[in-house]
Amino acid sequence: MKALVYHGPGSKAWEEVPDPVIEKPTDAIVRVETTTICGTDLHILHGDVPAVTDGRVLGHEGVGTITEVGEAVTDLAVGDRVIISCISSCGKCAYCRKGVYSHCQADEGAPGIGWIFGHLIDGTQAEYVRVSFAETSLYRIPAGLSDERAVLISDILPTGHEIGVRYGQVSPGDVVAVVGAGPVGLAAIVTAGLYGPSRIVAIDLDANRVAQARRFGATDGVVASDADWREQVLAMTDGLGVDVAIEAVGVPATWDMALSLVRPAGHLANVGVHGVPVTFPLDTAWIQNLTITTGLVNTDTTPTLIRLLAQERLDVDGFVSHRFALDDILDAYDTFGRAAETNALKVLLTAG
Amino acid sequence: MKALVYHGPGSKAWEEVPDPVIEKPTDAIVRVETTTICGTDLHILHGDVPAVTDGRVLGHEGVGTITEVGEAVTDLAVGDRVIISCISSCGKCAYCRKGVYSHCQADEGAPGIGWIFGHLIDGTQAEYVRVSFAETSLYRIPAGLSDERAVLISDILPTGHEIGVRYGQVSPGDVVAVVGAGPVGLAAIVTAGLYGPSRIVAIDLDANRVAQARRFGATDGVVASDADWREQVLAMTDGLGVDVAIEAVGVPATWDMALSLVRPAGHLANVGVHGVPVTFPLDTAWIQNLTITTGLVNTDTTPTLIRLLAQERLDVDGFVSHRFALDDILDAYDTFGRAAETNALKVLLTAG
Repeated sequence: MKALVYHGPGSKAWEEVPDPVIEKPTDAIVRVETTTICGTDLHILHGDVPAVTDGRVLGHEGVGTITEVGEAVTDLAVGDRVIISCISSCGKCAYCRKGVYSHCQADEGAPGIGWIFGHLIDGTQAEYVRVSFAETSLYRIPAGLSDERAVLISDILPTGHEIGVRYGQVSPGDVVAVVGAGPVGLAAIVTAGLYGPSRIVAIDLDANRVAQARRFGATDGVVASDADWREQVLAMTDGLGVDVAIEAVGVPATWDMALSLVRPAGHLANVGVHGVPVTFPLDTAWIQNLTITTGLVNTDTTPTLIRLLAQERLDVDGFVSHRFALDDILDAYDTFGRAAETNALKVLLTAG
Repeated sequence: MKALVYHGPGSKAWEEVPDPVIEKPTDAIVRVETTTICGTDLHILHGDVPAVTDGRVLGHEGVGTITEVGEAVTDLAVGDRVIISCISSCGKCAYCRKGVYSHCQADEGAPGIGWIFGHLIDGTQAEYVRVSFAETSLYRIPAGLSDERAVLISDILPTGHEIGVRYGQVSPGDVVAVVGAGPVGLAAIVTAGLYGPSRIVAIDLDANRVAQARRFGATDGVVASDADWREQVLAMTDGLGVDVAIEAVGVPATWDMALSLVRPAGHLANVGVHGVPVTFPLDTAWIQNLTITTGLVNTDTTPTLIRLLAQERLDVDGFVSHRFALDDILDAYDTFGRAAETNALKVLLTAG
């Protein structure tokens, strides 16, 4: 089959690799019909995720059809159309039993991490993919849910919802600032709306992203290159800062921005994938009664989000900005990698 | 009256100052009968808290008798014996209405901070003290509660309980590490026991403090100068780290220690007063599903702790290591400031 293979920092190829096969009784093989590219894939290509080694098939998002199941798989069958979750979880370990699937202790590549696709095992930017723990890592697509919407369930919708909105404890009446209006920031914006905030402020260096964030539920927008960006945000509060700041970029500057916006006793939810440490000014923050969270998506709300999406309760049309054939994935990477010029959000790849 | 007056970094004097007077209808004047010194006072003397200016009477802990009340004070009377909370709160602002008294927005010195004694207004290391918002900042001492125990309610017991144990979400079965077995660390240890943890591990550079922490409920102790201190702690878990790490010192090294001990999806509750920023390795922490909290005590659990203390549910005998007459407060500072040599925990000062 063809797959997008990582060959070390800066290097990738769409090339022939062996078809995946069932390795364990709990596996399934899925024919990938729709996949997409995540900002994390760009981090990997920049060399920020050293656990990803030469020869790894990238990708952790996808929708497809089951073509084969291991002998322990009884709840899924060949022919089922499924969403592939970016988190593979055994469902049995102590972390899974608490719903913290992000840190599943099963050893699929390395124990302790539920994100293995395109990281520790081969991923979804391929014609076929082997899915570990199929019954607890695949979700049947309900009637009426398009593949283009369904693929957002693989990663960005639960990530924005769980690690941004829920870890940030967004509550009725809150003022929420989302620093970074890329796909995951937009996923936080669209799901924050479920919790009744009074304002959702989208903040980005890219004025186009700020503008389009309103389509997804942002009530306000601030362009981060404005000299008075912080004052603009504080003016939307009682002057003390926002209740919840969601960091959805992953660089020190956006961490600093988010921290500077949070009011005393507020919440900072870090969603961004960071490549370097940041400075935490505990000399001023020790007295601020802050709650700061980090996290890889748990996918404990994945079934909820599928239901809401099927009920059209989440307005995600417009998340997909560009469409490509799977064979043209290198072009798609180019478009996604130049998002500031191309205005790319999610780029959709569809198998022929 | 006599009071302990701050005269800039490194300089203090026990000297004559004017008696405090009622300034607002909600004030009370309290004759201080018992007070104590907090690690924060040492931070102030080191110049770490620049808001404290020359001429300020220090101290934010105390027990005494009301000698005068303002005309709006109806629930307290002259002669009432009271605990002086380190947090002065108006009870009316948006923060107070949420129980976040630490960030009371009333302007007593500066709006937005409930800790004003010995900080923004004159404090309790004096013969008399003016208490703002007396009805919501003083607590009558119940029968049977000694002054020596009651004074622990002013700051350290609620601080350890609220900012350490409750912000850290200590839960049944948890392994809890407390980094720093000084007075506030011990307050966290003794109140952590209320929540059913499986282990409470006291960690300190001072072997004496580690040993005596067992008297207050620590099940285990680790001397931080041991080369394998971290391995010793991890061996008390399933190898993945502790559920809750409580930082109760306030320097970068102890922040690093606490962070290195927390398991994925664990909690780090910072209680220490820090003088400099720390490094937060978000490049590894982004994926760890951590919850990190900071905070000044809210005192929302102060009535609860008074009840538990009066019921002898908290074993705090032994918190007070040294006793002095109030007139000898300079000697008490000397003893407290050399705690590593003197084995000081809380030093009690009693008016004649």
